[in-house]
Amino acid sequence: MATHDHALVRNAGPLWDEATRSPFLDALAAGNLPEDAFRRWLTQDYVFAKDLMTFQALLLAKAPRVCRKPLIEGLAALDKETSWFESHAVRMQVNLDIPPHPTCRRYTDFLVRCAYTQPCSVLLAILFGVEASYLAGWTALARSGPYAEFIERWSSAEFAAYVAVLGELAGRHPHEAAQEHFNEVLGHEREFWKMSWEG
Amino acid sequence: MATHDHALVRNAGPLWDEATRSPFLDALAAGNLPEDAFRRWLTQDYVFAKDLMTFQALLLAKAPRVCRKPLIEGLAALDKETSWFESHAVRMQVNLDIPPHPTCRRYTDFLVRCAYTQPCSVLLAILFGVEASYLAGWTALARSGPYAEFIERWSSAEFAAYVAVLGELAGRHPHEAAQEHFNEVLGHEREFWKMSWEG
Amino acid sequence: MATHDHALVRNAGPLWDEATRSPFLDALAAGNLPEDAFRRWLTQDYVFAKDLMTFQALLLAKAPRVCRKPLIEGLAALDKETSWFESHAVRMQVNLDIPPHPTCRRYTDFLVRCAYTQPCSVLLAILFGVEASYLAGWTALARSGPYAEFIERWSSAEFAAYVAVLGELAGRHPHEAAQEHFNEVLGHEREFWKMSWEG
Amino acid sequence: MATHDHALVRNAGPLWDEATRSPFLDALAAGNLPEDAFRRWLTQDYVFAKDLMTFQALLLAKAPRVCRKPLIEGLAALDKETSWFESHAVRMQVNLDIPPHPTCRRYTDFLVRCAYTQPCSVLLAILFGVEASYLAGWTALARSGPYAEFIERWSSAEFAAYVAVLGELAGRHPHEAAQEHFNEVLGHEREFWKMSWEG
Repeated sequence: MATHDHALVRNAGPLWDEATRSPFLDALAAGNLPEDAFRRWLTQDYVFAKDLMTFQALLLAKAPRVCRKPLIEGLAALDKETSWFESHAVRMQVNLDIPPHPTCRRYTDFLVRCAYTQPCSVLLAILFGVEASYLAGWTALARSGPYAEFIERWSSAEFAAYVAVLGELAGRHPHEAAQEHFNEVLGHEREFWKMSWEG
Repeated sequence: MATHDHALVRNAGPLWDEATRSPFLDALAAGNLPEDAFRRWLTQDYVFAKDLMTFQALLLAKAPRVCRKPLIEGLAALDKETSWFESHAVRMQVNLDIPPHPTCRRYTDFLVRCAYTQPCSVLLAILFGVEASYLAGWTALARSGPYAEFIERWSSAEFAAYVAVLGELAGRHPHEAAQEHFNEVLGHEREFWKMSWEG
Repeated sequence: MATHDHALVRNAGPLWDEATRSPFLDALAAGNLPEDAFRRWLTQDYVFAKDLMTFQALLLAKAPRVCRKPLIEGLAALDKETSWFESHAVRMQVNLDIPPHPTCRRYTDFLVRCAYTQPCSVLLAILFGVEASYLAGWTALARSGPYAEFIERWSSAEFAAYVAVLGELAGRHPHEAAQEHFNEVLGHEREFWKMSWEG
Repeated sequence: MATHDHALVRNAGPLWDEATRSPFLDALAAGNLPEDAFRRWLTQDYVFAKDLMTFQALLLAKAPRVCRKPLIEGLAALDKETSWFESHAVRMQVNLDIPPHPTCRRYTDFLVRCAYTQPCSVLLAILFGVEASYLAGWTALARSGPYAEFIERWSSAEFAAYVAVLGELAGRHPHEAAQEHFNEVLGHEREFWKMSWEG
């Protein structure tokens, strides 16, 4: 099933587009992204990934048998991505040891709070929201230009397959609060792209 | 020791004033606060108090013997305050069963995330920040006008004594991350007043 | 409703009697309790109470509005009890700063694990189990002899009223795993009395 | 560094041998293990592994960058082990959907409680204790007989390398409470083998 056919996506309304389209991504694909915007995004996405791993680990701690394998593979993928960010940062002489931007901090405050207080089924909807919107945002771009490597990474068949599994797990573990939390994720995604673009 | 002499307050810089002064409070004291602003503040403060109780309960769960009595008294006071809000809401025909404003939600996401992930000493600095800035904001107002009852409640000797005890506990349990979290609280307080005033 | 009419008690089977009767209590009431047994019980019950407060605080953090007042009163009562233990310990020259007995540790490992992983409704059944079995154990004893003060404390009308409220809250928030956890509490209670008596 | 040279092992005293030697393992290696003992161990170890995964996930949620890769590999290995148990259970017609034995439950109550309440450095010592004692217990056996496959699995070079990494991480993140918790693990290991043997 394509991501955009998932009930959580269909019922998100205009939030879905707001969370997956951004002047930042357009400029990145067009090859005219200001370097400081790219650096801001790179560092904040790295900072975000650290807390996302905490979220994913706490979700795994609550997950039933059937979810564990894909969630562990997701943790391994996120860890590889972290190393990949670090090697880019070294090459580009970007310092990754910086505090989170308030927008990034709000997003991770939301994620970690939910990880501790919400049941597994809500957390699956949240993780699907994080990853599905990211996939959609990057997949809409042409795989070319100076950032082709980045575009390819998050529009790859491998990443799409992971997102499809998350969508399936979220679908198989419904919860009345799932849509509300999925929508909150989309709001945070929208703000994150805005922050990357505007500072 | 007066609140403003506490090291955490002195080292907060201009954030302290930003968190404790607001057009909302000025208008409330002057008797010309628009009713919808008051209702917005009342409902959001009520919603906030629900999550603050969760924060305070999680802090108690981590607290050593010496902190437990004042923290339990703080929980009892917060519960009484909740009932007091509810009786006001009934009289004013305000519906308290509403979702949190994004600004309120960000504040409680921060509080609940920290309650689960930070040690007791950091949580004491956070709670002191929440209550000391509130005391300072209300104490600066003249105890008169249509909202005199509210002003008296949060500038009372009893509330000041509770805040003094929290300041003492935070002082006796220092932590290198205390100031940073105290400052984050002040940022959230500033935004909360702004939201109450502007919507 | 009397404690022994509560569905959780009725469905506990023989475990209820095993958790509420003990040679330790019989000897205490008869006035022939060996002093070292009394000291062991006193110190381990004190150590237990510290972790029980953590349990009760974590339960409060998850509890809906309707439960909060009695749970906060329960925290205040437990804090007073802690002070009461400490004053007895001073008078009897008992050192309270000791490690938990393995039996005590197992009981609190169970409580704290559940406090973090179980929903509020299960935790209410657990707390009711802890307090109702304690009330029943002490209420069966004649209020006389050298330990009359202890017997009176835990067979008092005030304590019985608290237990009745807990029973009501547990009844109003049923959960399919409630009985199973209630029974586990009774098993731990039985072992705690055994440890107090046998060492 | 060999496991038995690790400071945590050296300072554990006789507990180390008690946790790593057992009539159960001797009989298993000698080929005269009663079938019901094997089945008891198999099912309880499976039940244990479910909660161990929760423990390891919660540890990962608290772990700094440097620990994450080996901890994620440990999660993946544990998940594979879970599948391996399930395939054995199918072949041997063993029902794995059973409640934990009280001894198993005590062990996991301890692990999950600590996972929520202890800092990362203590949790590393605990995980090292769980895995190092298991490695030592199986490595002492001849790799032959009807259970050779089991013996090989937990005395393999791969498992030994994982344990060595855990020992290194525990060594690099010391904590004053590490030894005490390491020793508690060994006590639980001793009881687990005893339960497997005696029922």
